[in-house]
Amino acid sequence: MSKFMRAALKEAEKALQKQEVPIGAVIVLEGKIIARGHNQREGLQNATKHAEIIAIEKACKKLHSWRLDNAEIYVTLEPCPMCAGAIANARIKKVIYGATDTTANDHLCESILKSNRLNHKVLLEQENCEEGKALLQNFFKSKRKQPGAVQ
Amino acid sequence: MSKFMRAALKEAEKALQKQEVPIGAVIVLEGKIIARGHNQREGLQNATKHAEIIAIEKACKKLHSWRLDNAEIYVTLEPCPMCAGAIANARIKKVIYGATDTTANDHLCESILKSNRLNHKVLLEQENCEEGKALLQNFFKSKRKQPGAVQ
Repeated sequence: MSKFMRAALKEAEKALQKQEVPIGAVIVLEGKIIARGHNQREGLQNATKHAEIIAIEKACKKLHSWRLDNAEIYVTLEPCPMCAGAIANARIKKVIYGATDTTANDHLCESILKSNRLNHKVLLEQENCEEGKALLQNFFKSKRKQPGAVQ
Repeated sequence: MSKFMRAALKEAEKALQKQEVPIGAVIVLEGKIIARGHNQREGLQNATKHAEIIAIEKACKKLHSWRLDNAEIYVTLEPCPMCAGAIANARIKKVIYGATDTTANDHLCESILKSNRLNHKVLLEQENCEEGKALLQNFFKSKRKQPGAVQ
């Protein structure tokens, strides 16, 4: 596993410790991590606070720019449409994701990243991350075992 | 024009006063506006700060919940993929947009709102808003007239 995917995984573990869906992301520019984020939807009670959005917001703040040209984002799970859209809007160059989102069979992430609407296309690559996948699977398995959960 | 689209238009005008791309949104629950937002990408130098995201964040804060069930969002322009994804993630019931986004010919907004991935589909409706369209057209026209602009 690349050191950057490992850093994203560490972020996912932080989310897990807070009982959040364990997803993490880091943004890399010129070989250095400039921002990190983990999912905080429940803790912040804010539908937009996915790992990628938090990392993008921090990177914009750090660079004093909404444009993150040449940056790459490593994320433990294939981005949802909101996050894929934010990645494209921020002009991020490349997404490297760990696990495939099995709830999404409509290839929306790829369609959004490759859309012509911004004259900017984002490269997309998968880097296998079994640990990230296992974190997610175990999280949902434990949720289903809770009293009152739909089996 | 409905009073809610008029309120969204007022938000777009606020964006224009700040030299931002003039787009505005309001979120309505049980017949009342619970949150307003206008595009602040440049002012905040943050790629995620579109009108809809700002309004969603405010509504979540107001309701102390990431779920905005039964809420409707009025927005002066067809949402971009990031905002359409955020609207779906927040479980908003319906989008009413003014102008069609002519840069998007791939129907991504609709595909995202109607996607099966969340077991939640968002209704989509257009309400004609010539004033909102004119605001955007005049904004881009004036930008093209600036010295050094690509004609």
